[in-house]
Amino acid sequence: MGFAMGYFRDNIERAAGYVPGFQPGRSDVVKLNTNENPYPPSPQVIEAIKAIEPERLRRYPDPLGRAFREAAAAVNGVGPDNIICCNGGDELLRMAFTAFCDSGRAAAYPVPTYTLYPVLANIVGCEAIEVPFPLGAQKAGEGEFNLPAKLASTGAALTIVCNPNAPTGSFVKVEEIALLADEVNGVVLVDEAYVDFAEETGVRLISSFDNIIILRSMSKGYSLAGMRFGYGLANKTLIQGLRKVQDSYPVDAAALVAATAAIEDQEYFRANVEKVKTERARLTEALRQLGFNVAESSSNFVLAQCKHSKANEVYEKLVERDVYVRYFNMQGLEDKLRITVGLAQQNDRLLEAIREILPQSK
Amino acid sequence: MGFAMGYFRDNIERAAGYVPGFQPGRSDVVKLNTNENPYPPSPQVIEAIKAIEPERLRRYPDPLGRAFREAAAAVNGVGPDNIICCNGGDELLRMAFTAFCDSGRAAAYPVPTYTLYPVLANIVGCEAIEVPFPLGAQKAGEGEFNLPAKLASTGAALTIVCNPNAPTGSFVKVEEIALLADEVNGVVLVDEAYVDFAEETGVRLISSFDNIIILRSMSKGYSLAGMRFGYGLANKTLIQGLRKVQDSYPVDAAALVAATAAIEDQEYFRANVEKVKTERARLTEALRQLGFNVAESSSNFVLAQCKHSKANEVYEKLVERDVYVRYFNMQGLEDKLRITVGLAQQNDRLLEAIREILPQSK
Repeated sequence: MGFAMGYFRDNIERAAGYVPGFQPGRSDVVKLNTNENPYPPSPQVIEAIKAIEPERLRRYPDPLGRAFREAAAAVNGVGPDNIICCNGGDELLRMAFTAFCDSGRAAAYPVPTYTLYPVLANIVGCEAIEVPFPLGAQKAGEGEFNLPAKLASTGAALTIVCNPNAPTGSFVKVEEIALLADEVNGVVLVDEAYVDFAEETGVRLISSFDNIIILRSMSKGYSLAGMRFGYGLANKTLIQGLRKVQDSYPVDAAALVAATAAIEDQEYFRANVEKVKTERARLTEALRQLGFNVAESSSNFVLAQCKHSKANEVYEKLVERDVYVRYFNMQGLEDKLRITVGLAQQNDRLLEAIREILPQSK
Repeated sequence: MGFAMGYFRDNIERAAGYVPGFQPGRSDVVKLNTNENPYPPSPQVIEAIKAIEPERLRRYPDPLGRAFREAAAAVNGVGPDNIICCNGGDELLRMAFTAFCDSGRAAAYPVPTYTLYPVLANIVGCEAIEVPFPLGAQKAGEGEFNLPAKLASTGAALTIVCNPNAPTGSFVKVEEIALLADEVNGVVLVDEAYVDFAEETGVRLISSFDNIIILRSMSKGYSLAGMRFGYGLANKTLIQGLRKVQDSYPVDAAALVAATAAIEDQEYFRANVEKVKTERARLTEALRQLGFNVAESSSNFVLAQCKHSKANEVYEKLVERDVYVRYFNMQGLEDKLRITVGLAQQNDRLLEAIREILPQSK
């Protein structure tokens, strides 16, 4: 026997695995727990899917997704060779851990953040260096989620900055990312899954930094969570290397058609983003009125700190009222709820339910 | 610096990556190079895709693909808990290498076979133990692709048997798989991507062996190569462990709908498989008449050995005539062409082109 007793590698055997946000089976609930866009995808997406020829299903899809890469290159002001199509942004994250990290090559990221990162670190067997944000400063409002200074000196092969960050909604300026990429020896992956709702993107950095990868998702800004489509932006050398660890045909023909139609309809996209931002401002203000501490968000969700109640109890009582938000039972988040910005009427139902739950705010 | 000089891990930096079969841009060529089914998917698939609600695209898909698992469980006589949905069979292969193999835990498989296996072994950094089929015996017709006896004693954590095998089309009896699973200490993955065209499946083994995983693909028998959908069958413990190394939402809403509709239309599926088998027999016989050595195939392709000509030259001359087959420049395959069984008129065009190329057979 050339291996240990179990069928699985030890760190897989021990792992709990990533637990995705609950997906309620019913569609009549107020679902503000997994940060979907409240608006449907562009009508052009629906048209494109209905027009798919059976021949496109029968044949293998374009392995590199040329049509999407050309459309995304035009939108982002880069070349198609700077783009790699992925089966959701999560695939790019997995590919980055696979390509850059192993037992001798660590990953580093500020916490709290997207809880998939440590799961992926465990799978490839690399050290996960978690550098805390100065969370205590959160109530001060400014600078509480600046990049921790120690992040630049971890020696990690892969440093990840979720920007805007989940679940805090906070945003790090692009100059800060540039400084970080300049200081580290490894690769910096900027997880911009939520950037469509923020003020700026770091995409311009890929022409001057050979160690920056920008991750994008079509799930949030483009309302395509169901289609699993993300992409990476980086210099050509990084893109070619990442391709080596990717499955042969990562995205299917329908996802390619849908994502391409979505990114080509910039007008529809921009209008939806503006509507979400407007509701975000209203929701933030209303939650503050109800006594929550809500930091400014650059994303399509807000993180609400419960000051006079227990967050997990509010969460449970919201579920009883068919309102789903996200509660993370983790250090620094025990007293907070992450709430997706929904349609105006969904946000109203949430606020109404909270008023019922918190008698003092009636 | 906690890592070596390059951004990438050394074995990724050195790797060439997997090269998928050429996908010609034009659709008027005779494409017999990547083993697609020549018939379109079931009309019910097309209907199901056209009927997808925008809401299905907007929301995250069912992470576990319950609807498909229930349909596939009924077809295979197992429970839904014995099934895992994957973004193509290739994803299940990658997951198996990730879950079972590392620098101390090897993978083993008979060769020649699917050339993705060594690529995946390199990515996870495990030893790839390649055990040759007794290829010299191939002309004898019988027994040339029985499992090599040494395969059972490699000490590998993962042993893969591609069955029917690509690119040979040969088939190993299910009793042989059972004997292998009984002898090895690790997991046996039976890659049944092509089993729809064979005589039997090993699926019954999963109830008595806790170390057998059956891989299935919807690309071949169900004409859905463009939709990237495969699945695994195994006991519940293996399925749950594999889930830990899988992306959160591996298959998109359209792929789920398409695969479910396809597997529910067993009548259409069986009729197409029979048509392919009939053409396979005709193609095999015609190629033999033209002087090729063609072993019996249990798949939707044939492996044709060129006796009086150079296989790579025949390949090139076929390309000049807009006929694409697959040539592998690898040991034991230099003198052979892998030819997908196409529609009758496609096979006729292939045979006609070969008659032109090989003057002696005119």
